[in-house]
Amino acid sequence: MSTPLRFVIVGGVAAGASAAARARRLSESASITLIERGPDVSFANCGLPYFIGGEIKQRDALAVHTPQTLKALLALDVRTSTEIIAIDRPGQRVQFRDLAAGTTGWLPYDKLLLAPGAVPLRPALPGIDDPRVLTLRSLGDMDRIKAAATHATRVTVIGAGFIGLEMAEQLQRLGKAVTLVELTDQVLPPLDRPMTRLLEDELRKHHVDLVLGDGITAFEPGDPLTCRLASGRAVAADLVVLSIGVRPDTALARDAGLALGPRGHIRVNGFMQTSDPAIYAAGDAIETEDFITHEPVSVPLGGPANRQGRLAADHSFHPTTTQPYPGSLGTAIVRAFDVAAGLTGWTEKRLRAASRSFRTATVNDNHHAGYFPGAKPILLKLIWEPVTGRILGAQVTGLAGVDKRLDVLATAITGGLTIDDLAQLELSYAPPFGAAKDIVNLAGFTACNTRDGLVTPVDVLPDDPTVQILDVRPPPLVAAHPLPRAGTINIPLGALRARLGELDRTRPVITVCALGKTAYFAARVLAQNGFQVSALTGGIRAHFDPRSPAKLPTP
Amino acid sequence: MSTPLRFVIVGGVAAGASAAARARRLSESASITLIERGPDVSFANCGLPYFIGGEIKQRDALAVHTPQTLKALLALDVRTSTEIIAIDRPGQRVQFRDLAAGTTGWLPYDKLLLAPGAVPLRPALPGIDDPRVLTLRSLGDMDRIKAAATHATRVTVIGAGFIGLEMAEQLQRLGKAVTLVELTDQVLPPLDRPMTRLLEDELRKHHVDLVLGDGITAFEPGDPLTCRLASGRAVAADLVVLSIGVRPDTALARDAGLALGPRGHIRVNGFMQTSDPAIYAAGDAIETEDFITHEPVSVPLGGPANRQGRLAADHSFHPTTTQPYPGSLGTAIVRAFDVAAGLTGWTEKRLRAASRSFRTATVNDNHHAGYFPGAKPILLKLIWEPVTGRILGAQVTGLAGVDKRLDVLATAITGGLTIDDLAQLELSYAPPFGAAKDIVNLAGFTACNTRDGLVTPVDVLPDDPTVQILDVRPPPLVAAHPLPRAGTINIPLGALRARLGELDRTRPVITVCALGKTAYFAARVLAQNGFQVSALTGGIRAHFDPRSPAKLPTP
Repeated sequence: MSTPLRFVIVGGVAAGASAAARARRLSESASITLIERGPDVSFANCGLPYFIGGEIKQRDALAVHTPQTLKALLALDVRTSTEIIAIDRPGQRVQFRDLAAGTTGWLPYDKLLLAPGAVPLRPALPGIDDPRVLTLRSLGDMDRIKAAATHATRVTVIGAGFIGLEMAEQLQRLGKAVTLVELTDQVLPPLDRPMTRLLEDELRKHHVDLVLGDGITAFEPGDPLTCRLASGRAVAADLVVLSIGVRPDTALARDAGLALGPRGHIRVNGFMQTSDPAIYAAGDAIETEDFITHEPVSVPLGGPANRQGRLAADHSFHPTTTQPYPGSLGTAIVRAFDVAAGLTGWTEKRLRAASRSFRTATVNDNHHAGYFPGAKPILLKLIWEPVTGRILGAQVTGLAGVDKRLDVLATAITGGLTIDDLAQLELSYAPPFGAAKDIVNLAGFTACNTRDGLVTPVDVLPDDPTVQILDVRPPPLVAAHPLPRAGTINIPLGALRARLGELDRTRPVITVCALGKTAYFAARVLAQNGFQVSALTGGIRAHFDPRSPAKLPTP
Repeated sequence: MSTPLRFVIVGGVAAGASAAARARRLSESASITLIERGPDVSFANCGLPYFIGGEIKQRDALAVHTPQTLKALLALDVRTSTEIIAIDRPGQRVQFRDLAAGTTGWLPYDKLLLAPGAVPLRPALPGIDDPRVLTLRSLGDMDRIKAAATHATRVTVIGAGFIGLEMAEQLQRLGKAVTLVELTDQVLPPLDRPMTRLLEDELRKHHVDLVLGDGITAFEPGDPLTCRLASGRAVAADLVVLSIGVRPDTALARDAGLALGPRGHIRVNGFMQTSDPAIYAAGDAIETEDFITHEPVSVPLGGPANRQGRLAADHSFHPTTTQPYPGSLGTAIVRAFDVAAGLTGWTEKRLRAASRSFRTATVNDNHHAGYFPGAKPILLKLIWEPVTGRILGAQVTGLAGVDKRLDVLATAITGGLTIDDLAQLELSYAPPFGAAKDIVNLAGFTACNTRDGLVTPVDVLPDDPTVQILDVRPPPLVAAHPLPRAGTINIPLGALRARLGELDRTRPVITVCALGKTAYFAARVLAQNGFQVSALTGGIRAHFDPRSPAKLPTP
């Protein structure tokens, strides 16, 4: 029997705590030490906004484990309020500082795991050090924001990414007047427009003052604090939550000479080993591999962190049988009031930036059978590789069933599925849960129709006056929600074959309907009658009015 | 330009209506005739129980299309109340009878699609022709049951499959005293026990009188009608809904000499062509191929029917570019009150009957992060192939998120994913939607742990008194919900390492906990201390008390 393995873990939250638990399952004899700079371990990071907003009522609910429960259940050596200040790689030991006692010491390791996470960005803006400008990472940060919110009337959230949206929602829930400032021209910048329209509509509906395309330049002291924006606009705030992104907390790794990526992330191989094979790294601080391109990518999310930590433990104890990390899809989701939105894999903007070829299909539907009560609108954008038909990414937004479609599509990407596979995917159907043709099937149908030349989709209506815009919705829908576009010709689909003479065969036509489906049907009629025709994908709902009603036609 | 293709479709509901719509997209010039024996076309078959129970309030909602809308939108020749009485295959024509006029005639075809569907079984039992014994297939059947239910106090539903469960739920919703009789010893016979326990518990909670392991033998006239069961039991009923299965409606195909399967289903190839290549068949009447074994299988469900109809149209017009049907997974789901249950792929009982080797993992969890309000229990049984690790099937039951996990696992089977892939699957996570380690990941972890020999799972507690049953739940949970098993030893996990001396090292141990996870943790402690140990999968919740509370431990 060999000497028990000494496994030292730096960072006690998602990746670190998962690694510690897994290591103990694999070895009762190992010496496992979990070191955490903060006072808390294994807390539910992703739940912090919801305790601030009062949706999670018990602070205890966020403490998945305490140092005491970890010691009792896992026989760990847990050291909180302890910082690792140096790694002696040749000597295989780390130097720690006990932050309470002020003492330092050395701890030997056979395997070391770095799970330091990431810290919120705080750019060096004038006034950034004002005590009313807060960021959210730890339970302590959460308590500070919650306390400050008690006395605040006006709150400004800067950055409309995942955390920013959650904070805006939860602060509005507390009755605050919330201003949400975002540098880009949309909320949730990772997504393509118009996939964020429904979210933006929902935020405004809940009286969140949405300031898009504007950035913070300074915080000017006074009561209230003035947030000065690049446009010159001034926003008064009693509290500012800064959520403009994170940077990996990797000074320790850098000082130890471990290989880092261009933005400071720790580089690891498929087994989470750094450039020093005795040192692993996992979670928000690392660069992993993109699932599709195998290029380095950083995905600071809870799910991957947990699984990476577990994998690092597996490889520490069973290096020959561990399967490598498959890479990251970047699957993510956020809720803002009644709307959910998320993505998996690549977006159009990312593909464009990388000059990669792709095609898209955007489809609207209900989240379950339209004839069953409670059906809610859902919008799905599918992105695939032109020649192979392989799914590259998807974005979904809607009022229900968004997580399900994202998860199906994340699994489809993992399995290398094509648009033909999606068309035939056999998903669960009973009226309360789905549809005989789920929106995922419809996305597959639409993509195949595009590939096979049955339809030419367009994503925007051009300004070109020679193009005929043909709205094929039934007259009552047109009257209730007219297309905001002068010169539109209205012929409902049912009358189209009889009224082809009203269209000019020498000029191109773009067909438009409520959801995109009837426009496709009309485009088929026109194409087979010799017209040069394209169809607006996603319909009125996607482009102009995210909640516009529509009786769904059935293919 | 060739002569326009004459496409004749027999059966105007799911497969037939889908084929007609798709055919028109593919060809404006084709002559498309849709023939339906009943008065209605393209109605929402799966919605019928919900209109009976009043959950769907508008009968119109079920009429996806009328003959008039189909004619207007698709320029179809729609003939309802018209029966096809013969196929002249050499002459490529069908003989029809107009049921209203009583006249007959012939209709030529280039391509013929048979989509006749299936009819409910009505075994030749004494009293079966009593007008109070009804079955559900058409809108007319629905109206008859709804009318009969108005005057009924006691309703007996015979057969606890998908339709039987939906009918029992909806009739209880109307305030009827519902008896549900099922021949096998469980509801939802396609599923493995104990995956149906939660459903059974839910039905009883809603005062459905559940009679399992008993079959109908006769209906004895009188008021009320008496349902006589094999056990001798008599059940009084004002209305009986018979839902014991369906048989394919394939007399026409048989008379035409088309190849049929052993149970009368029409045999088709991957393009839905019957033994006569000019004749296609789709929907409930056909045999398709099992996705995994490629053996013939019949899957009478709405989703596959719709897609098969569409595919038959594709191949009729574009025979060289159509992709073949990938086979059926048999994905299905049902709701009974607050509980959903379903399956995809193969079950244990089906694998056993086929003498195929398999392994299983049963895991409990919440449908989203346990610390977020509204987390509901969910139970997942994963079945995989021993050597390859490939997923063969899954069953899921719970109070929320069941459809999502079924759809993810159906997609995983389609993509050929293994248990290792499931462990790493990157699903969407924010507290309202999922968990950092989703139950699908946990199922993958558990399966890998089993394969790798980290744990020996057992599915039942043996009666053998030499086996030590060790309940490792915290004392308050044990006190509130004691394991109904004499001689159980209680040592909470946190105290186990210190109290190993209380166990007999010479006798095997089975660890038990609330959900199955802590039992695995305890089994790891014992195994590494030299014990012969197994862990009860699924825990108390799966085996004894489907709604038992538990604070979920975190791995």
